Amino acid sequence: MIAADGLERNLTTMAASLPGSRLRPHVKAHKCTALAAAQYAHGHHSFTCATPREVLGMVAAGLGDDVLLANEVVDPLRLKALGAAQSNARITVAVDSIETIDAAAAAGLTHVIIDVNVGLPRCGCRPIEAGRLADRARAKSLDVRGVMGYEGHLMVLDDRVLQREKVDRAMDGLVAAHEAVGGDIVSAGGTGTYDLHDRVTEVQAGSYALMDTHYAQLGLPFEQACFVIGTVISSNPRFAVADVGLKALGMDHGNPSITGATVWFCSDEHVTFAMTDGPQPSVGERVLVAPAHIDPTMAMHEAAWLFRGDDVIDHWPIDLRGW
Amino acid sequence: MIAADGLERNLTTMAASLPGSRLRPHVKAHKCTALAAAQYAHGHHSFTCATPREVLGMVAAGLGDDVLLANEVVDPLRLKALGAAQSNARITVAVDSIETIDAAAAAGLTHVIIDVNVGLPRCGCRPIEAGRLADRARAKSLDVRGVMGYEGHLMVLDDRVLQREKVDRAMDGLVAAHEAVGGDIVSAGGTGTYDLHDRVTEVQAGSYALMDTHYAQLGLPFEQACFVIGTVISSNPRFAVADVGLKALGMDHGNPSITGATVWFCSDEHVTFAMTDGPQPSVGERVLVAPAHIDPTMAMHEAAWLFRGDDVIDHWPIDLRGW
Repeated sequence: MIAADGLERNLTTMAASLPGSRLRPHVKAHKCTALAAAQYAHGHHSFTCATPREVLGMVAAGLGDDVLLANEVVDPLRLKALGAAQSNARITVAVDSIETIDAAAAAGLTHVIIDVNVGLPRCGCRPIEAGRLADRARAKSLDVRGVMGYEGHLMVLDDRVLQREKVDRAMDGLVAAHEAVGGDIVSAGGTGTYDLHDRVTEVQAGSYALMDTHYAQLGLPFEQACFVIGTVISSNPRFAVADVGLKALGMDHGNPSITGATVWFCSDEHVTFAMTDGPQPSVGERVLVAPAHIDPTMAMHEAAWLFRGDDVIDHWPIDLRGW
Repeated sequence: MIAADGLERNLTTMAASLPGSRLRPHVKAHKCTALAAAQYAHGHHSFTCATPREVLGMVAAGLGDDVLLANEVVDPLRLKALGAAQSNARITVAVDSIETIDAAAAAGLTHVIIDVNVGLPRCGCRPIEAGRLADRARAKSLDVRGVMGYEGHLMVLDDRVLQREKVDRAMDGLVAAHEAVGGDIVSAGGTGTYDLHDRVTEVQAGSYALMDTHYAQLGLPFEQACFVIGTVISSNPRFAVADVGLKALGMDHGNPSITGATVWFCSDEHVTFAMTDGPQPSVGERVLVAPAHIDPTMAMHEAAWLFRGDDVIDHWPIDLRGW
């Protein structure tokens, strides 16, 4: 369930810091077109996606003004589906190799961005290769919109001064690549570094909208606005068990949190926890479970309930799941 | 994707060890009625479920001869749906408290099993409470079919002699509870302890069918029969990246495995890995990613492709997802 007021505050705070096209919200963090529409209403009309289905879902929802698939795809069927969707939307895909450029061109896509490795060992070409790849793309009649690079290895650092320095060094490579590539876009960043970018044209943050306990360590001005609601199904004087388990929570960042309690462990369909003070909750009581990683958590659920105080005010399908 | 021959060998091996009703396969490990039907064909006609949707899906698929919901539920709507499904199936639900007994009775359910804590800090009453709860259930006109207890804390122990001793001690409590409760069923166990039970009437193993790298540590006579197939989307002399990330893999047991490679880390939609010998794979090549935990991995996918050699021979919907 999503706290309507917390979400609204997060969206407002971010839009004040990175207004309009300065933010390209990443929908992989929520996979929900209703939430993307709220981001659109806050002035952000360009979006970032991680999967073809996210792109297609955004286009189907009328949110396809400027959608960037910030990931490499070589599957011809998926790329062709994106090509077909271009009649209703502006779609740009990331490329980092001859193979991905050729696959995009073969599928009839028209716009690409050169993905540059800025230190995270994942996708992206070396900065020095970016110009050559842009030439290749243009030779294939692709419009090269610029460069992107994701400094994911720098998202969560305790020391923000050091983090700023490291982000700046990472951006040296991206800026150099941009000089060779050209185009209007220099795209980077995420929630953990959203306020450390003055050399890019846009930031790709997503988690800021709902947050999680992992990002909460950083002391960012965003609040936890999404919880998995559980029901206590077993309780004794030492501990209690609620029906929210690891099939309902992204676990790669560890256990979830429950206010006032210590979480012992998660099983497939259970979380075992103990209240720090006071008695354990009774069978039937509700508990709010805060996920450690919001992105995979959202991907596990079919819908989110929006609430304000004690009232459920809306039901948002999580409609961008899958690949 | 599921290796048809590997699955078949696993099912055959288990059916030889625990034939017919000695095994009550746990469908939470695969969430797939087509796979449950294969287990049925191997002689197991009673099943274990972890969620109401798993029960309802099994009944809808005609696999409801004897379905045990081995988990506590207090939600009246979900319980009522189970009550309504009893006209086509025999459904038994686990109870471990006055509240869960009363909720089952109020929803019109007819059969319960007393869930006993055998050492895992999760659901289940203390053995000494089991008889009293059975009395309560019978006073509510519920048919008490026996007892169950899951020694989940003993599933993965290196020392099998010690494991057998500990399982035996855990079963002391379950057997004592059964003496107080009565009924035909004493249900316990899982894949990690499937061959260590001679004091129960049935074992609830599930992971044996598809296996995962976590259970593979134990040297059980079951093989890895399920992989997430990935496509290499980026490659360089040091490492490669495939499009199988932590949204496609249960991560609570750690990183997945790729034969011949070292997995560096997973992101939402990526796995970064390096071949131990030889060159990195090229963009477009396929890799088989073996999950560390099969249950949550299956829950993340809409369907599984069954393959034999290089051929895809069937498409199985993973139709028991959700709650």
